[in-house]
Amino acid sequence: MTKQIEFLNPPEIIRRSNWRDRYETKVAQWLTPWDGVELPEIGFIGVPLSKTSISVSGASMTPNALRELFANATTYNVDHEVDLQHLRARDLGDISMHVTDLLKCHANIEQGLNNVYETLPGLFPIIAGGDHSITCPSVKAFRKHAGGKVGIVQIDSHMDVRNLEDGGPSNGTPIRGLLESGTVEGRNIAQIGIHSFANSKAYHDYAKSQGILQFTANQVHRAGIESLVEKAIKAAGDGTEAIYVTVDMDVLDQAFAPGVPAMVPAGMTPWKLLEAAYMLGRHPKVKAFDIVCVDPMQDPRRATVRMTLYVILTFLTGYAMRSNP
Amino acid sequence: MTKQIEFLNPPEIIRRSNWRDRYETKVAQWLTPWDGVELPEIGFIGVPLSKTSISVSGASMTPNALRELFANATTYNVDHEVDLQHLRARDLGDISMHVTDLLKCHANIEQGLNNVYETLPGLFPIIAGGDHSITCPSVKAFRKHAGGKVGIVQIDSHMDVRNLEDGGPSNGTPIRGLLESGTVEGRNIAQIGIHSFANSKAYHDYAKSQGILQFTANQVHRAGIESLVEKAIKAAGDGTEAIYVTVDMDVLDQAFAPGVPAMVPAGMTPWKLLEAAYMLGRHPKVKAFDIVCVDPMQDPRRATVRMTLYVILTFLTGYAMRSNP
Amino acid sequence: MTKQIEFLNPPEIIRRSNWRDRYETKVAQWLTPWDGVELPEIGFIGVPLSKTSISVSGASMTPNALRELFANATTYNVDHEVDLQHLRARDLGDISMHVTDLLKCHANIEQGLNNVYETLPGLFPIIAGGDHSITCPSVKAFRKHAGGKVGIVQIDSHMDVRNLEDGGPSNGTPIRGLLESGTVEGRNIAQIGIHSFANSKAYHDYAKSQGILQFTANQVHRAGIESLVEKAIKAAGDGTEAIYVTVDMDVLDQAFAPGVPAMVPAGMTPWKLLEAAYMLGRHPKVKAFDIVCVDPMQDPRRATVRMTLYVILTFLTGYAMRSNP
Amino acid sequence: MTKQIEFLNPPEIIRRSNWRDRYETKVAQWLTPWDGVELPEIGFIGVPLSKTSISVSGASMTPNALRELFANATTYNVDHEVDLQHLRARDLGDISMHVTDLLKCHANIEQGLNNVYETLPGLFPIIAGGDHSITCPSVKAFRKHAGGKVGIVQIDSHMDVRNLEDGGPSNGTPIRGLLESGTVEGRNIAQIGIHSFANSKAYHDYAKSQGILQFTANQVHRAGIESLVEKAIKAAGDGTEAIYVTVDMDVLDQAFAPGVPAMVPAGMTPWKLLEAAYMLGRHPKVKAFDIVCVDPMQDPRRATVRMTLYVILTFLTGYAMRSNP
Amino acid sequence: MTKQIEFLNPPEIIRRSNWRDRYETKVAQWLTPWDGVELPEIGFIGVPLSKTSISVSGASMTPNALRELFANATTYNVDHEVDLQHLRARDLGDISMHVTDLLKCHANIEQGLNNVYETLPGLFPIIAGGDHSITCPSVKAFRKHAGGKVGIVQIDSHMDVRNLEDGGPSNGTPIRGLLESGTVEGRNIAQIGIHSFANSKAYHDYAKSQGILQFTANQVHRAGIESLVEKAIKAAGDGTEAIYVTVDMDVLDQAFAPGVPAMVPAGMTPWKLLEAAYMLGRHPKVKAFDIVCVDPMQDPRRATVRMTLYVILTFLTGYAMRSNP
Amino acid sequence: MTKQIEFLNPPEIIRRSNWRDRYETKVAQWLTPWDGVELPEIGFIGVPLSKTSISVSGASMTPNALRELFANATTYNVDHEVDLQHLRARDLGDISMHVTDLLKCHANIEQGLNNVYETLPGLFPIIAGGDHSITCPSVKAFRKHAGGKVGIVQIDSHMDVRNLEDGGPSNGTPIRGLLESGTVEGRNIAQIGIHSFANSKAYHDYAKSQGILQFTANQVHRAGIESLVEKAIKAAGDGTEAIYVTVDMDVLDQAFAPGVPAMVPAGMTPWKLLEAAYMLGRHPKVKAFDIVCVDPMQDPRRATVRMTLYVILTFLTGYAMRSNP
Repeated sequence: MTKQIEFLNPPEIIRRSNWRDRYETKVAQWLTPWDGVELPEIGFIGVPLSKTSISVSGASMTPNALRELFANATTYNVDHEVDLQHLRARDLGDISMHVTDLLKCHANIEQGLNNVYETLPGLFPIIAGGDHSITCPSVKAFRKHAGGKVGIVQIDSHMDVRNLEDGGPSNGTPIRGLLESGTVEGRNIAQIGIHSFANSKAYHDYAKSQGILQFTANQVHRAGIESLVEKAIKAAGDGTEAIYVTVDMDVLDQAFAPGVPAMVPAGMTPWKLLEAAYMLGRHPKVKAFDIVCVDPMQDPRRATVRMTLYVILTFLTGYAMRSNP
Repeated sequence: MTKQIEFLNPPEIIRRSNWRDRYETKVAQWLTPWDGVELPEIGFIGVPLSKTSISVSGASMTPNALRELFANATTYNVDHEVDLQHLRARDLGDISMHVTDLLKCHANIEQGLNNVYETLPGLFPIIAGGDHSITCPSVKAFRKHAGGKVGIVQIDSHMDVRNLEDGGPSNGTPIRGLLESGTVEGRNIAQIGIHSFANSKAYHDYAKSQGILQFTANQVHRAGIESLVEKAIKAAGDGTEAIYVTVDMDVLDQAFAPGVPAMVPAGMTPWKLLEAAYMLGRHPKVKAFDIVCVDPMQDPRRATVRMTLYVILTFLTGYAMRSNP
Repeated sequence: MTKQIEFLNPPEIIRRSNWRDRYETKVAQWLTPWDGVELPEIGFIGVPLSKTSISVSGASMTPNALRELFANATTYNVDHEVDLQHLRARDLGDISMHVTDLLKCHANIEQGLNNVYETLPGLFPIIAGGDHSITCPSVKAFRKHAGGKVGIVQIDSHMDVRNLEDGGPSNGTPIRGLLESGTVEGRNIAQIGIHSFANSKAYHDYAKSQGILQFTANQVHRAGIESLVEKAIKAAGDGTEAIYVTVDMDVLDQAFAPGVPAMVPAGMTPWKLLEAAYMLGRHPKVKAFDIVCVDPMQDPRRATVRMTLYVILTFLTGYAMRSNP
Repeated sequence: MTKQIEFLNPPEIIRRSNWRDRYETKVAQWLTPWDGVELPEIGFIGVPLSKTSISVSGASMTPNALRELFANATTYNVDHEVDLQHLRARDLGDISMHVTDLLKCHANIEQGLNNVYETLPGLFPIIAGGDHSITCPSVKAFRKHAGGKVGIVQIDSHMDVRNLEDGGPSNGTPIRGLLESGTVEGRNIAQIGIHSFANSKAYHDYAKSQGILQFTANQVHRAGIESLVEKAIKAAGDGTEAIYVTVDMDVLDQAFAPGVPAMVPAGMTPWKLLEAAYMLGRHPKVKAFDIVCVDPMQDPRRATVRMTLYVILTFLTGYAMRSNP
Repeated sequence: MTKQIEFLNPPEIIRRSNWRDRYETKVAQWLTPWDGVELPEIGFIGVPLSKTSISVSGASMTPNALRELFANATTYNVDHEVDLQHLRARDLGDISMHVTDLLKCHANIEQGLNNVYETLPGLFPIIAGGDHSITCPSVKAFRKHAGGKVGIVQIDSHMDVRNLEDGGPSNGTPIRGLLESGTVEGRNIAQIGIHSFANSKAYHDYAKSQGILQFTANQVHRAGIESLVEKAIKAAGDGTEAIYVTVDMDVLDQAFAPGVPAMVPAGMTPWKLLEAAYMLGRHPKVKAFDIVCVDPMQDPRRATVRMTLYVILTFLTGYAMRSNP
Repeated sequence: MTKQIEFLNPPEIIRRSNWRDRYETKVAQWLTPWDGVELPEIGFIGVPLSKTSISVSGASMTPNALRELFANATTYNVDHEVDLQHLRARDLGDISMHVTDLLKCHANIEQGLNNVYETLPGLFPIIAGGDHSITCPSVKAFRKHAGGKVGIVQIDSHMDVRNLEDGGPSNGTPIRGLLESGTVEGRNIAQIGIHSFANSKAYHDYAKSQGILQFTANQVHRAGIESLVEKAIKAAGDGTEAIYVTVDMDVLDQAFAPGVPAMVPAGMTPWKLLEAAYMLGRHPKVKAFDIVCVDPMQDPRRATVRMTLYVILTFLTGYAMRSNP
């Protein structure tokens, strides 16, 4: 029989909440570790790989950085009066990585996610990178899981269609990798937030030739985000079984995402990104979500990690309201 | 007879302005220490208490941090062509605090403000926290001073209506404390900027049951701040003698207020907060103002302290224009 | 004959790009050092002077800080589908400065720029400060170069018309210096972004008396930047041969320009500043450009230097489109 | 039956080691949470209280900050060829604290430790503060546990004998509190590292009058630490049942402990503090250990927390060698 | 009659001590502003000039940064059992500076100090820079004050004998300026702490030719500081009326002085610098003291400013013990 | 013919020295880029690889970070009165790296260095990492170059003999890789600075079994570094043609090397490391030098990069004195 010692809180409880108000649920009390038995509806999966980044990146530390913030945010969306704690969500853990063999890391991601989808059919995956290179193996696994064609809505400053010869499968190539492998067709890819002086003309020409739908950061600034997201969903959903959403946090203005490796000024604002996340979460065809390229080591007071968590929670608010007509 | 030494500036002058342009007035030359004799119209009062915060907070250092910035800002509002130096304003100093007896600190605040209001009748208080717990004793003193019912306009990400059993009177409870003590009625409280994932459903239900008027951060983003402030003033002023304004700086987006203990993404913008401050300053029923929850120890280049000073100066611009039809 | 060593990159190449994608041009590959022979169309000129600042400033380090970022940004503006690499642009280097004789520094700027304009007739100068004091000698040289009256469009939180008696020619006086020397008339000066609590009433009165056109930060917030820039161009171009554009980066909100010595809250946003830069770049009467008052020593992750580079590149995008009806 | 998913590591394992070398034991794999059943020899106990500090302190975050570093350090002391994993050590968790009632916090510490000592007789406590105020209730509990007189070896820049009237039981008063309550006699207290300009003459006189043995920082610098520790042990052990060791990390020079609230230059070096910790760990009469006053919020790259962990591990190395003649 | 308000502390008192223990004297309660009437024995004088530095320096902010720390340190030296509050010391303020005319700044220093010495005969000056350029005009005034030949003991990584042609009187030239002006003879100058890779061979040869006595950082490391200081005092005092001590804080290792513009690794340690300060303070021929080249803007948690204050207080401890045989 | 513009310094000159004193040589004026023709005696070679690190590391940025500091340090060692500018030294550039294929990176290092040694026979290489994984391919190339057995003197907190199965060739395995490949014998390897709680017992046993000579950090603290270096040279030189020196900067105490990924408290001091570097530079059998594991992204004010440069310059001082009996 285990002993209880009055006035002493066990270490695991401390990590989840140093102090607790009995009328409040924190994300840490809801998004708890998977027990290996339950069949959760939502699965949080970390993919701690960032050595595949072109510049130095500590994005491999983001899954754990998010888990630390689980103790700070509540589950309640006051705008929509939705409490996420009614969703059966679990933290499945992280895909295992190799220290020096980066192709093995990509293989682990694809196979690990295949395993997850087989073990937990019906799971909606919330995938936290890592850098954007993870989206290529992740979408490959997702396509197998979806059992048909898939589309992509990508919110990003960068097109990510670099050639694969100059550096292999990096955070600059996931979309190119998916196109060249025939996993996704260009006409089912929509990119929102593409930024000047962060992409080259040659790749812009390539993206156009593949039929990718693109909206620039400036278009996001001038137009409402709503209409652009609607168009993106339409393109990604056209003739496909499911839509995969991928968010690169460097799409945000550098003031709002100071902790990304490749920051830009005059990027997207948090209000627009959260609106997009809500809309995408709400759409029934969206069946997977990843969010990438946050470097907690360069992130003052974890501002970018916090915003990342808010994007996830807002996406899930939309998801929770799907059944709500 | 005191000696003057040419080319030597006394230390007190140095603190107020290292270099002076003869055609410019800095806040430090206008908002000078009270001499114990004058009857100023505006009194700046520091309330350096933040051990009552749920998380670690250095907000007790804010009054002095604001005083340091007095040397940097001028008194001139170029938008309204108003020079604040025509207001008779003085720095009254700080409420004295106890190192370990936090209830005594709250008692000092209430009694100290009672003393101020008795000694300096007609004073308009500009109260700088400290954390939000100070608003409870401060409004109690204010109600006595006002001689009748008072209302509150609160600009904040948080509802601050936590139960008082789990942690005593903290920065999460001032509104609860005022409601339970009967100091203010719920229907005279208006909250602007309430944020998702920063409050719980149970407290949302409680606030509704008390008749508190609430506008979320998202509503502020979508609507003009003007209409919301008008509605808030109407609720706070309905049947009351006076309105007390309380601003928690964590209402701002984390990019604009990086130095608050409980920061949120997608919060209010500085343009909207200054507009609200101006409108509230201008309204004749508003008769007290506090601003809280800034931690100078976590504030890069004092950005949040600076914004706090601008909120105060903009509120006073509105105040200075009250007589201006 | 020089030897090539396989797998070894010479140090000069490393500085320009640690890794290169063959389909991408970085600013560093386009804006290369002048070889002393070419006649470039665009000349980047550093003016590393900031001891003339009233407060401590490291703005003298900005030209080299910009050069370091040349390796990170591409030359392609995706919004306008313009590739800057078609402009013949060169980095001419920096004006030489004296360690302790600040009047000599100003003289070097004026004479150095005179020499540049004589040696490279037809050059469009992109001048990177340094602090705002450099604009006075720079406009004097520009006026000689322009061969007639010139106007100024200034984007700035400050009026920069302080008296010259209290501190000599500092970063608070360039416009006063140009007015008092008869270099520019007040009615040909337009200032956008003037900020409350950052200027004094006496200088506001002076600016009005000189006929300077002013728009406050609040007006920029409420109005579209487009109409204000149009009015500014009209005033600056009225009866003049050419317009000189000067941007003080402290016009931006402190969240977007954390690395300026005299930061303000509720300043201009990057979207508006880039729009202004584009419009000014596009206007045929604009014939010189400077950008000042960024302190790389106080700039987290070079965010303000990066924004400065984007302002330059966006201005040049407008310039590149001048011939485009 | 629980499922295993290949290539997926559960979240709890990730926190303890993102990657593991099979031939290496990290502290996190050894100092694991207590299961409520075992009778460990060593118990790690967090005491997250720092609102009792005179200046702002985040020392309440130190127990969890230490736990995070458990994943980085190994259990092997190469100097003495001792592997700590042979000690039965467990992490018991943290004493529970009240948000605003600081006397209640002190009562919880004393009662909580009493409970621990009753539940786990024979336990050697490693207590991690929190600030130095915790040492007063901790030694009170320890004295009850020891069943006789106890002595104290304190390694600290400060004497901690302030009067209890001016601020109550703070981090400046633990020794005064123990003296006035009769818990410990002055002649059984030895202080090492007392610093100039960090204490007052009046308290120096008081300490002398109580018979406290004191060595200044300068004496530590000039003499070998060994002889001073021997003298300290002798005084603390003279006529007592057991010795309680308390280390205030502000005893270190500010270069070596940048993350303490009250830092001093020319303090102790890490080599001397580790030597002292080893000697004290080794001495059979030493039966409790606490370490306090580290603020992780002000600690660049957790340098001071890391040093704190090394002090604990080095103390335990000495402890492990007690049986080794 | 002035009013007292219970529980309210006036702002000036707050700056000197937010909380006070009645049995403790802080530097701020002792080193108070000069009232223009007293004849203090010790005068603290700020010289806020650093535009004369070769690299960017904020050393002009050091006098006020020191004043802020006056509230944190006590007056009691526990090693020597000396309480500095028995010295009649006052803060005289700062020498006034011009914004852009740096020669005028140097003239103000010389004339301002002449004025101080005439007004307050017998004053022992404690001069806080600013950068090292201030030592040239300061020693010129001191020589006039001393009424005969003077010697210099300089503790510094740099020789400061650069030529005056390449940059004028900068922080690299004070000793050259004093030699060329005939103010001091080379044989009466002793330099302790001269560092490799921070000086050139040509200037080493020059210093030798002038007869300057030099000890390198490595010699300080290997030898005891005591013998070197004794030799330095002997050289500086040989045939002179008085010795002027000048300390450039960049003599310290960069770990101990992270806030100097020109930091070096493997520099002096704080224990040795404090010992030197004590010995120099104690010597009857030493009659002036300056300390320079600390940049509070680059100084994490004010570590270097704090060490600067400790050097001053330790020097004054020696001074206080002069009468003590 | 190229044009000269008075008062304008070309950008390449600016990078090497913003301001120049004609009597001073900076490292940047001496260690200039190789022109592809000369046969330098000393070659500086960057190896920008750090994705092979177990934890996140930006050490790939160190070669360029060192180059930036070349403009700050002089070439003159005042302790030994040696001016390094008499050595024919050139900056050869960096080994080229692949973005994602880390085995290819290691192959490039080995082949690139082979190419360097063939092209420039007689070259003494100064190799700047990168992380410690580079030492394995570097020593392989060096052994081929040396034409016989080689020994290693390693100054490091870590043994670097991890198994190669768990993570491939990482920064934890270079010595294991060299042993298993038969490149170096254990009895010719000497390690200085091995640290407690940073290595495991199993690897200590392995190192002993291989005959590696080890001195712990504590032994370095207690003994003079001189005797340990002599013993290390003796072991490494016993029966070998040449000695390769490798310095891992994490051997330093964290106060002196705040910018290394795996920092330790109570590490080596800079005075001892420089003494070791001097002795090793001076020894005729030492024929190669590398220095690794500095992360400029985590290095406040480049303190660790600066110390790295001083280690190189001090090593070269010893080298320059080899001919000096």
